[in-house]
Amino acid sequence: MLIILLSCLLSVRKCQFKDKEQDAVHDDIESLRGKPLSGSGNSMVMLGGSSSVQSKWKRKSAVTLALTVLTSSQAILIVWSKRAGKYEYSVTTANFLVEALKCAISLAALARIWRNEGVTEDNKLSTSWDEVSVYPIPAALYLIKNLLQYCFLKYVCLWQYYIFAYVDAPGYQILKNLNIISTGVLFRIILKKQWSEIQWAAFILLCAGCTTAQLNSTSDRVLQTPFQGWVMAIVMALLSGFAGVYTEAIIKKRPSRNINVQKNFWLYVFGMAFNAMAILVQDFDAVMNKGFFHGYSLITVLMILNHALSGIAVSMVMKYADNIVKVYSTSVAMLLTAVLSVFLFGFHLSLAFFLGSTVVFVAIYMHSLGKLQR
Amino acid sequence: MLIILLSCLLSVRKCQFKDKEQDAVHDDIESLRGKPLSGSGNSMVMLGGSSSVQSKWKRKSAVTLALTVLTSSQAILIVWSKRAGKYEYSVTTANFLVEALKCAISLAALARIWRNEGVTEDNKLSTSWDEVSVYPIPAALYLIKNLLQYCFLKYVCLWQYYIFAYVDAPGYQILKNLNIISTGVLFRIILKKQWSEIQWAAFILLCAGCTTAQLNSTSDRVLQTPFQGWVMAIVMALLSGFAGVYTEAIIKKRPSRNINVQKNFWLYVFGMAFNAMAILVQDFDAVMNKGFFHGYSLITVLMILNHALSGIAVSMVMKYADNIVKVYSTSVAMLLTAVLSVFLFGFHLSLAFFLGSTVVFVAIYMHSLGKLQR
Repeated sequence: MLIILLSCLLSVRKCQFKDKEQDAVHDDIESLRGKPLSGSGNSMVMLGGSSSVQSKWKRKSAVTLALTVLTSSQAILIVWSKRAGKYEYSVTTANFLVEALKCAISLAALARIWRNEGVTEDNKLSTSWDEVSVYPIPAALYLIKNLLQYCFLKYVCLWQYYIFAYVDAPGYQILKNLNIISTGVLFRIILKKQWSEIQWAAFILLCAGCTTAQLNSTSDRVLQTPFQGWVMAIVMALLSGFAGVYTEAIIKKRPSRNINVQKNFWLYVFGMAFNAMAILVQDFDAVMNKGFFHGYSLITVLMILNHALSGIAVSMVMKYADNIVKVYSTSVAMLLTAVLSVFLFGFHLSLAFFLGSTVVFVAIYMHSLGKLQR
Repeated sequence: MLIILLSCLLSVRKCQFKDKEQDAVHDDIESLRGKPLSGSGNSMVMLGGSSSVQSKWKRKSAVTLALTVLTSSQAILIVWSKRAGKYEYSVTTANFLVEALKCAISLAALARIWRNEGVTEDNKLSTSWDEVSVYPIPAALYLIKNLLQYCFLKYVCLWQYYIFAYVDAPGYQILKNLNIISTGVLFRIILKKQWSEIQWAAFILLCAGCTTAQLNSTSDRVLQTPFQGWVMAIVMALLSGFAGVYTEAIIKKRPSRNINVQKNFWLYVFGMAFNAMAILVQDFDAVMNKGFFHGYSLITVLMILNHALSGIAVSMVMKYADNIVKVYSTSVAMLLTAVLSVFLFGFHLSLAFFLGSTVVFVAIYMHSLGKLQR
């Protein structure tokens, strides 16, 4: 059961490219909350070597801003590619390219560091057993995710559909905000961070504010969610929070260690391998007949680039800030996407959106206030 | 223009008994926010003399609880009397009885105090010019309100309809939450109270939370409010806030003075006189032919009792606590009414209601936290 739910959780992000029928803006933003384990493990080139020169605050702000901008534009790109018509490219090749791109950026960053600093204990690619032994849990999560993804590929996110049988899609978006609370609770328990009362209050507000901003005419159906649906949503929220917090714990355990090695470089190779297998199983004929890049457009390329960079940004925020900053950042990105959609696609903002945004910004203000007072 | 808007504001509460077409629950709760000037000026018998024995905190909690319970049950009573069918009694006689009852309770409290303590400088009914000179503004407000009410009686809240031309009724309920902000701002300016940053944040949240809790499918129309509507709503909010804060300033100016005299006893006599005139002009034939108490039911009696006691409770909260406590109290009463309505009338609570309630309770927690830290 746990494995099923785990796969359910982990398949969410991989379904990003597949799940075209749903509201792309919401879906994509929301799925970000569930992907702290995926798409990370690299270091941006420009921040690779000289980071110690910059102040910590500047670096933290820069990576947070990068994550916010990348996350908000991710949803915009999906809507744009939707406007261009039906998706012609194969999802498995796109996923493969995202993993490959992250690998390439990671290697490029490492190469640059090796050239500047030489190969040291902190940046060498081969890892000792002692160090590898801290990775089993995220490694297992990746493995299970990729295995299950492979097994259920033909069913296109079967487990995601399974939860939709209990909770409809808009309700699922609403319930995903439970991730905010679970991340906060697990962050406190696992990383043993002290939070002031104001910061707890801020986190509850963040959850309430994000949910309010997403309210629409069908949102009330979430209240009719049966017991199984609630259990699933809570378990998924806990797994999602756990994955993010555990990853942060590993990164923070040895701060001097280069992030490319820390986030287990080999997992990217696994990612590429599994996605290659997925191409063989699912899209072999299509790729053979039409070519690997069939249906690719400029938007597709931008989406792949964005996904890869987002993964890197998540990883950087985990290293230089924490999961809490990541949650605030993705929440602001969600609001930002909605505001941008007004100008780009003529969307209408609801009163609930303004109220939710107000609550989210008060929450951010309180969080920083709580930090000063702590 | 100012007078028109003033009358608009002040007529809101008197329209309470008249305005039957609208959503009674919301309307009544909301109109409470607009009536800090009305329906007060007395002291509850049991708290009249021996209040100094009780601790300040206990007294403050008791009056706040009383206001919350009375306010929430007020709306329930209106729904109940609606369920019993059409209102048969005349509104003017009911208004008259509310004023008369407050006068009677006020006098009874004074009589009790005179018997126990003798007539002193603090509780005597006749006031010196020096003391009366602080009352002109609320006295003028009462006078204008009663005069305009008399003039426009035949049009049944003409000015309330005037604002509805710009803002529809549900939108009006939403916009009334601006009163929360205006009360906070004027409280800070006029009473020169120091607020911590957390308390400001809490007040913004209270406003956002109350509005969220009241969201429904038609709420988004408020965003289409034209400029005139916004100006009106803001002016009304400022007037409402000013009336409440000014009243508190007068009460707090001389804390030892008995509340029955402080709130200008004579205004109640004016209130009775004007309502008597209203009966003569509007319902003279009906009262003559059918009798003064025609159409009265147990619910009507309870409603009159509740309105009188609510007025007294508002006055007590102003004296022993402040306008801010009053705003929090009526906000909680609004939520309480909705919850009670689930059990009593089978209402359904929306997801927005739960989110709004969460934000309101976090706001209350933060306000108390801010108080401790100040």
